[in-house]
This record gives sequence, structure tokens and C-alpha cells, in this order.
Amino acid sequence: MRQVAVIGIGQTPVDEHWDKSLREIAVQAIVQALSEAGREKVDGLFVGNMMSGILSHQENLGALLADWSGMPGIEAFKVEAACGSGSAAVHLGVMAVASGFMDSALVMGAEKMTETSMAETTAALATAADADFESDHGVSFVGLNALIMQRYLYEYKWKHADFAPFSINAHENAMNNPNARLHDRISAADYRKARMIADPINLLDASPTGDGAAALVLVPLESLPSNGMPHIVIAGSASATDSIAIHDRKDGLWLSAAYTSARKAYGQAGVPPDDIDLFELHDAFSIMGALSLEACGFAERGQGPRLALDGEICPQGRIPIATRGGLKARGHPVGATGVYQILEIVQQLRGEAGENQIPDARIGMAQNIGGSGSNIVTHILKRV
Amino acid sequence: MRQVAVIGIGQTPVDEHWDKSLREIAVQAIVQALSEAGREKVDGLFVGNMMSGILSHQENLGALLADWSGMPGIEAFKVEAACGSGSAAVHLGVMAVASGFMDSALVMGAEKMTETSMAETTAALATAADADFESDHGVSFVGLNALIMQRYLYEYKWKHADFAPFSINAHENAMNNPNARLHDRISAADYRKARMIADPINLLDASPTGDGAAALVLVPLESLPSNGMPHIVIAGSASATDSIAIHDRKDGLWLSAAYTSARKAYGQAGVPPDDIDLFELHDAFSIMGALSLEACGFAERGQGPRLALDGEICPQGRIPIATRGGLKARGHPVGATGVYQILEIVQQLRGEAGENQIPDARIGMAQNIGGSGSNIVTHILKRV
Repeated sequence: MRQVAVIGIGQTPVDEHWDKSLREIAVQAIVQALSEAGREKVDGLFVGNMMSGILSHQENLGALLADWSGMPGIEAFKVEAACGSGSAAVHLGVMAVASGFMDSALVMGAEKMTETSMAETTAALATAADADFESDHGVSFVGLNALIMQRYLYEYKWKHADFAPFSINAHENAMNNPNARLHDRISAADYRKARMIADPINLLDASPTGDGAAALVLVPLESLPSNGMPHIVIAGSASATDSIAIHDRKDGLWLSAAYTSARKAYGQAGVPPDDIDLFELHDAFSIMGALSLEACGFAERGQGPRLALDGEICPQGRIPIATRGGLKARGHPVGATGVYQILEIVQQLRGEAGENQIPDARIGMAQNIGGSGSNIVTHILKRV
Repeated sequence: MRQVAVIGIGQTPVDEHWDKSLREIAVQAIVQALSEAGREKVDGLFVGNMMSGILSHQENLGALLADWSGMPGIEAFKVEAACGSGSAAVHLGVMAVASGFMDSALVMGAEKMTETSMAETTAALATAADADFESDHGVSFVGLNALIMQRYLYEYKWKHADFAPFSINAHENAMNNPNARLHDRISAADYRKARMIADPINLLDASPTGDGAAALVLVPLESLPSNGMPHIVIAGSASATDSIAIHDRKDGLWLSAAYTSARKAYGQAGVPPDDIDLFELHDAFSIMGALSLEACGFAERGQGPRLALDGEICPQGRIPIATRGGLKARGHPVGATGVYQILEIVQQLRGEAGENQIPDARIGMAQNIGGSGSNIVTHILKRV
């Protein structure tokens, strides 16, 4: 297998882009990534997206975006794995380029969520859960995460306020990210007083919806000049699944697909958790941040909040997370999120993260979660 | 790259399965394919599906079906390329197994179309077209194909009745396929008198919707015993795209993505069109059958109907098509169709096609079309 390098990145700000359609934000990210890579075209396009059929009446995004971004004729597919769609698209693009099936690929995620009513968007998001046994009975995604968080608080004796550092850190880091959805510094008091959504999840536990698109250009490392300039490679790319319905899991507080995919990615990259300089995890809800840290070996079971309370998730801590705002504050344009995460790691490894720069970051990990833990993709990137 | 063999197939009849949900028909096909392959599990699952989010409130089919078919934890993705979703899933599965990323894969297509109203299903199907410039203005998929057929009749001076053999052949071949949606022998008179849908397309030009699921188990050929028994390999697997909106094409009567993907597949398999023993083409509408034959080198431009009128598309003809009924009569459960096509070729190459058996079939080709020609995947299978 060939090593795969990222040679171009592109993104739109995560926002309410009412003046732009899905194809427009997607093409904006694609063109930016191609331009940065100095390419006009790639061999194949992998589009991560979850809800375009429901919310924009548009499927067939592969063909649509290949054409609209000036690459008519190339291979193009939409990949869906709920909120993990973006990183699933990256994963399949890595497979295509590493194997030699393609000599270049554009992998991207795009989602348009703010042109429809909140009720429509919430219903569309719920298609990531088990329709027959969960969502059609009325439980939303926030509701499912609330069940998990409630149980976690009970089982490990944490107080809700102990999760505040997740939200505070994410909001703080987003302050310097021009592409972030939210630019509001928050305090522990703000967190405590935030409006309840689904007990115990309040507004500051939850990531905001948004329109967004992010793109990466992948090529084999061997095709790049060895002129002493550093390259960013995808050293690990692994995915795993779990039951889609929470009640079908033996242990509702353990993200087995996070554990499996992370372990595989560590093996591929040849690095232990201790070597990871930053971790873009899937903090769609603060409870998911804690569970992800535990499944990936950064905290003992039940001790995710401890890491946060000790400041270890902050930029200067042991395992910085959400370094550009995370899902919580950069925003969570579902099918695009996994690509934003990887793009932000590329920025960090390049030393282009500005005020959010993690000093001398050399290895970064991204973990993107589909459903309430049912489809998880983990990537590890290295500067070489 | 390793050669990829098909070692198990499974399908549900294409029908109105009102007593079974999407997951039930999908699992039925998966379990059948695994059982035939003598496996309990594979490394990865690729699900071709287009409309589950809209029509069944269910996305995240990869994780759902991995779990419900007894393979919790494995990698699993949904792949969408409109009506070409099934073969796109096969294509990516071939990539995974050929490259060594996976040592086995289950590739499948599943679609549930008959539990919703015809209006809802028609609107969902239209998401394969360009929402902003085609479907949101009211044109349906039949309408788009009618525009193409109208122009074709005008340009090449055919009469509508000249397309009758496509429909007659498909219906005739479906008579002996227990999994086909329609079992009605039709005549040229029936074709002429059929109810008009969108001039010039009448009911017998159009494929029926249906619920269906089909699955294949893929492994490297090198992993199979060489005991003199024949194996079925996927010798060519290629895809290409075209503009999604018909009005964006320079030539609305030429399926450039069919031409490109077929030419690539011929090259991979090392066979010219003349060596193809049967061709499962995408006769969603009879005009698409003609255009596909032309783009793939079986007829000169504008001469597709000639081949049909001369009987060359019949089982005993030069290039048998729709040998188990095709989309027209086996049925067109959108995201599953591409997998049914390949499954039927496997049956033919194994000599298991019963009354429809093409004598000594050794090489078969399948072509699956997404949108009105915008995303096309071509496969060539060989008995070795």
C-alpha cells in the first residue's frame, strides 16, 4: 500500500448560508482544496453527506459536484454513515489512493441544515437512529444522548457541572477560528445556567447545527517531491460499527466502535495514545467527548470528566481536544464534520492554526461518530 | 491487485413486500449470500441504497444491516449514486478486496419503494435529477426520459413501435424468473396500446418500482481452492459520471459515462464487446436500453432499436439483454438494481439460469445507470 498525503484543504465557514445552496458551499470547498493542491482535477470524488435527499431534495451528489466543480466525467460517489459520513468518505478515498485504484482523490463532506425548519432538520437527523425501534417512537438524537449522559452521571457519580470544561474549552478555542459557527466565550456559570434541552443535556452540552463543507485532496506520498519540505500523511484510517439502537448494546456507556477503530488506527500508524499531540473528537454532546476519550485510551472508564476538570483537554494540556472549536463551537454540519476535523489537524500539523496552534504538533487524531456510537471512523495524521 | 471472485449470492423477489421492512428484506438477501458462501461474517459491508432516508426514515444502513445480519462491529457504509447505487457499492467493495484492505466483503443493494404513496416515491426518485434546475420545477424522472426519447425518435426517424422488442423480450425472459416483479407475457399490440405516461413513454416502456434486496459475497480469487471447479470473477469494474442535468450535456443522446466506464471495463477485463455473451443493461426505460447498447459498442449511434427489431437482444441473439427480465420486468428497486444485474450474471455464468440460460455463457457485462445517465458503473464478469 502507498502512503497517502493531504496536499490541499478547503472549507467554508460553518454558518447559516442562506444565500448559498448546498452545491455552492460544496463547490467553494472543493475549488479551494484543488487550488491549494495546484490541481484542476482528480481521479475520483467521495462526498460525505447524510441528509441532502431529505433537506435539499438532492441525491446523486457525487455526479452533481463532480460536474459543478469542473471535473465532469470522473468517478464520484456519495458515502453515508450518519454523522460519520465525512470521515467515511475520507476513509474510502484513502483506500482508493493507497491501493493505486486512483492516483488522486478529492474527499469532502457537505451538509445544508439551516434552510429547513428545526423540526424538519431534527427529524432528518433522527434517521441516524433506529427508525423502527427508536426515532419513529419520538426519541430525538438529543434524547438518546440524554439517556446515555443520565446513566453516566448515575453510574460514575459525576455532577452535571463537571462537564463544563468540555464546553468552555471548545468555545474558547473557537474564538480564533474564523470558520467557526460560534464566537462566544462562556464561563462555568453560563454552562450551569444554560437552557435545558433534554435533561441532563442543556444547550451548552450540545453542538449547533450549521451549513458547511470541507474538502481534502489526497495523493500518494511517493508522487510528491522530497525537497525537505514536510508532508502531511494519513498514517491510520480505520472504521468499525456497533448496534444502531442503544438498547441493543451490552454496555451503553462504552463506545466499542471507537475502541476498535482507534486501536486499529494506532496499529496502522504505529503510535500509542501517548504520542498523539491533539485529538479532534466528536463532541456533538459533551458526554460523547468523555466517552471518546475513554474508549481511545486517554482516560480510564468513567474518568473522562476528570481529564477535562484537570485542564488536560486544553491547548496546553496532555491531550488537547476541539482545538479549533470542535463540534461544540466550530459547529456540526453533520456529513461535513468528519472532514473539518481532519482539515483542522492538517492545519495544526502544518503549523497554520494561528492562535490555536499546538506547539510542534506532529501527530493528530480525528474521531468521527455516526449515530449514537454506531458507525465510527478514526484517522491518525502525521507530519513526515 | 488481487482478482476478486463472487462466492455467494442472495436475493429477495422484487415485489410489494408490505409484510417486511427494509431491514428485513436486506437481511434476507445478506443471510442467503453468506450461507451460500459458507461464511458467518465478512470484513466489510457496502450497502447501495438511494431513498431510505426519505421513504423509510432510516439512514445509517451500513451499521444497521451489519448489526441485524449478525456481523456487529464490522466496517459498513451506505453508498449512494442514485439508481446506480447498487453497482457503486459493488465497485467500492471490489476496490476493498482487490487492494487487500479487506479479505472479504458483502456488497448489496436494498430499496423499499412501495409502502409510500406513488407521489412520495416519485418525488424521492426525482432527487436523482438536478433539484435546482430540473426536479424542483416539476419534471419527474419519466419526464426527463421522455424528453430524451422524443428527441431520439425525431433525430433518428424511428417510430415508437420500433421500441416494442425491448419490452417484449424483457417480459418474456421474466416469465421464468421467480424473483421477477412481473410475470406477464406481452405482445407488440399490448405495447402499442399501453397507457401513455409521459409522451412518448408509455407504461410498457417503463420499469416498475418494487421492494428488493440483492447481495454478493466477494473474496480474493487466490483464497479459493483450485480444484478444477469454475470460479466467477469480476474482471472489470469501472465507473464514470456525466452532468446531472440533461440540458448541461453537449449531446443529450449520447451516454458518455456509459461509453467511458464500458471502455475502461473492457480494458480491465481484456475483452472486446464481441466477446460479451450477455449484457444486463439498465432498461429503466426502453430508450435507455437503446442508448446503452450504442454507448457500449453493440450498435452504431441511432441503431439501438435495429438490434432489437432484428432479435439480436433475445436469448438466442448476438447480445442477449435483460435475460432474467431486466429492469423492465424483473423490476427496478432502485438502489438494489445494480446488484440484481450482477447476481443474474453470476447465475448465467454458473449455468444456474434455468429456462433463461444462455448456452455456455462465459463472459457477462452489467451496466447500471444513476440519474438520466449521470453516474454509470460497468462490470464485466468471467467464468475462470
